[in-house]
Amino acid sequence: MKNIILFSIFGFLSVLIRAQSTDAEMIDKIFTTALERGQAYENLRSLCKDVGHRLTGSHGDTMAVLWGKERMQLMGYENVRLQEFETYHWTRGEGAKGRIIAGQEKIEVELLALGSSVGTGNKNVKAGVVQINSWEQLDELGEQVNGKIVFYNRRMDPKKINTFMAYGETVDQRSKGASMAAKYGAIAAIVRSVTLKDDEFPHTGNMSYSKDYPKIPGLAISGRGANLLQECLLKYPDVVFEFSSDCENRGMVKTNNVIGEIKGSEFPEEYIVVGGHLDSWDVGEGAHDDGAGIVHAMEVLNIFQQMGYKPKHSIRCVLFMNEENGVGGGRKYAEEAEKNAEKHIAAIESDAGGFSPRGFHIDAQENMLEGAYQKLLNWGDVLAPFNLHYFKKSYSGTDIRPLQKSGTVTFGLVPDSQRYFDFHHTAADVFEVVNKRELELGAASIASLVYLIDNHGIR
Amino acid sequence: MKNIILFSIFGFLSVLIRAQSTDAEMIDKIFTTALERGQAYENLRSLCKDVGHRLTGSHGDTMAVLWGKERMQLMGYENVRLQEFETYHWTRGEGAKGRIIAGQEKIEVELLALGSSVGTGNKNVKAGVVQINSWEQLDELGEQVNGKIVFYNRRMDPKKINTFMAYGETVDQRSKGASMAAKYGAIAAIVRSVTLKDDEFPHTGNMSYSKDYPKIPGLAISGRGANLLQECLLKYPDVVFEFSSDCENRGMVKTNNVIGEIKGSEFPEEYIVVGGHLDSWDVGEGAHDDGAGIVHAMEVLNIFQQMGYKPKHSIRCVLFMNEENGVGGGRKYAEEAEKNAEKHIAAIESDAGGFSPRGFHIDAQENMLEGAYQKLLNWGDVLAPFNLHYFKKSYSGTDIRPLQKSGTVTFGLVPDSQRYFDFHHTAADVFEVVNKRELELGAASIASLVYLIDNHGIR
Repeated sequence: MKNIILFSIFGFLSVLIRAQSTDAEMIDKIFTTALERGQAYENLRSLCKDVGHRLTGSHGDTMAVLWGKERMQLMGYENVRLQEFETYHWTRGEGAKGRIIAGQEKIEVELLALGSSVGTGNKNVKAGVVQINSWEQLDELGEQVNGKIVFYNRRMDPKKINTFMAYGETVDQRSKGASMAAKYGAIAAIVRSVTLKDDEFPHTGNMSYSKDYPKIPGLAISGRGANLLQECLLKYPDVVFEFSSDCENRGMVKTNNVIGEIKGSEFPEEYIVVGGHLDSWDVGEGAHDDGAGIVHAMEVLNIFQQMGYKPKHSIRCVLFMNEENGVGGGRKYAEEAEKNAEKHIAAIESDAGGFSPRGFHIDAQENMLEGAYQKLLNWGDVLAPFNLHYFKKSYSGTDIRPLQKSGTVTFGLVPDSQRYFDFHHTAADVFEVVNKRELELGAASIASLVYLIDNHGIR
Repeated sequence: MKNIILFSIFGFLSVLIRAQSTDAEMIDKIFTTALERGQAYENLRSLCKDVGHRLTGSHGDTMAVLWGKERMQLMGYENVRLQEFETYHWTRGEGAKGRIIAGQEKIEVELLALGSSVGTGNKNVKAGVVQINSWEQLDELGEQVNGKIVFYNRRMDPKKINTFMAYGETVDQRSKGASMAAKYGAIAAIVRSVTLKDDEFPHTGNMSYSKDYPKIPGLAISGRGANLLQECLLKYPDVVFEFSSDCENRGMVKTNNVIGEIKGSEFPEEYIVVGGHLDSWDVGEGAHDDGAGIVHAMEVLNIFQQMGYKPKHSIRCVLFMNEENGVGGGRKYAEEAEKNAEKHIAAIESDAGGFSPRGFHIDAQENMLEGAYQKLLNWGDVLAPFNLHYFKKSYSGTDIRPLQKSGTVTFGLVPDSQRYFDFHHTAADVFEVVNKRELELGAASIASLVYLIDNHGIR
């Protein structure tokens, strides 16, 4: 009996060790393929330079959708197709211009209208400025901001190691600042760019209006501009800010997700989705946000093809459109998946830049999360040699979140976050600020996770 | 009895938990101080822009030594002083120029003489080219390279996740390629830059001569230049390379390490050293190599001062001179430490760039290493929230290595290595390619390790 037990234990251990060793070998091969024969960097160059920025409804949107479809066809993916949907259309027009008028001086500063904001019809608007550093302060001042421009000056907290945490704490002044100021009669909201780097680049991003208050313009001011405005407010009692903005909401527009796949050899009707978002803000080239995610997702399928790996489940690459200002693409994809009763076992999104990968976030319905998380932790040993060490139950991505309610386990790639908000939503987010190897390692990390899920399941 | 044992266990556990919690709080404070009130980035700006590059024996050397002394005095460190020593003096002169002559074409390429190489007295030298991809190939060709220029074209291996491993496997053609070629009568060695990025920047670095063979010039060619030369050799049977180089070895020169410290409150005669190297190659600004290490080391003391933390042991900041071409500074420091019977319990070097930190290498005499390593592993839990996850027994730094024989446990900061060899030893290694937060996190990581050693010992 003792021998049988011992034998069983050894048998079990040797199967375990063999599985681990096969996994280790396959993951090594995935990384080697990405680093030696990867297409991600060239794809990113093409997306950034041949297409450029690509806000929903823009010329760039049309170009990007075509680019994604053609590129996936060229790369030999199956069932490449568009998934059309309707969503909001916002345009920046000729942009925003602004200046601080302090004493005898007029100082031009860099501005970008916030997404979904109303404009001024390109006309100059002028008012006194009230600086606000907290919601409490705004409520205390109340009607004193009536007729004024509210300047939200709260900074991202530099001491948060995970910069996304600091972003999450600060972005509320961008997303709801205009309506909160309009509540007390303000005529516009100028928001310090949500970044840890004070330079000349304003950071745009989406905002929304409360239906209870008038719609007033919301604009981002660069870090340097915000510093300057702050100094002027200290020195001069009656600082005036003058600006114009040409943006407008133009109703609805049609656009598309782009989808391609490799059919599974054993479970073709079960899907593992890899995705990023194809749209970007209408400045720079959307290289880290989210060109990196797009080429990561496309590269996973390419790596498997290059390796000659035939996945058991269907691996589907989804280039989601409209993440930045509507999330229409994510919702449409989940709707169609539900309508067609497609079984999605897992979805992995890359939307945190093309930096050196650290690990993954995992998220799912409450009853499934802990089991899936333990499974992920068990893979820690085979992922550690590739510097993947960070596995946490946390938000995994805007576009794949709607899939959770049908039981999909969702993951978000977690790259090193230190540099992300230097570029996020700015004209500085261009191809040249993405490192080739860091980008490739991200793609290999996602491919490794897909390989593990494909072979060991996640539920 | 049972109660006594239980009481003892609970007592012990509560002390342990308290110690962990104090450590966690202190390390949090260290990171907060570095990220909110750090001086490292401004110090790096000043070193790069006010001093610039600083090869041993150059004007930059003199300036850098003065800079280090003044800066440490300004920052309020104790016992700030220079430690003079004599070492080799090599100069690049007017630099190297070269061109490929292939068929009717003359194509200029970017070259940098390798450190310690002889020059051509700025005269043009011309010969046919033999490409070599392995030592075996060189030995097989043997006398066929007589009178020729040997072109070492082996690349760094892109599939190594730790780029320093790939560097270590490839750098031999730079360090001994000239002598190995001279053995068979070659007149010069042109070496593909040791990098993973093929651009226009040649990467210099040191080489040495074997006393058995004639001294012939050694030069680095940029990645693009190497690609071009490789293509020309495929297309044209009789490619000729022509070059001139003005470098020379000029005998001996005096230079200095720079030292400052905070005296220990309990064990002032026991030292924990933090260091980097003050010299750099004579191109670019030596920002990652090793300006980052210099300001990391200086910042550790600054963080403790800012926090009001009084270390038990003396914390000594050493700016080692001459790491790049002689290691005279490291040897001198260890000699003096031995002569003065100073007890060095630990030394930590930062010489792998100012990138996001990943962990530490640890090295020591064989009988001490395992115990110290286990101690380091035990600190993994308090370091994990700061993304420090990588702890390995490995080489810890050139300048502190000579301290090992007197029983010092040595550590090397391990930052993310993906971008390091994009800049290493090139004109591209300038202040602007260092990210402020990544730099600050490195300093805080070292300060955290020093804090743990100061409080819990390492031997």
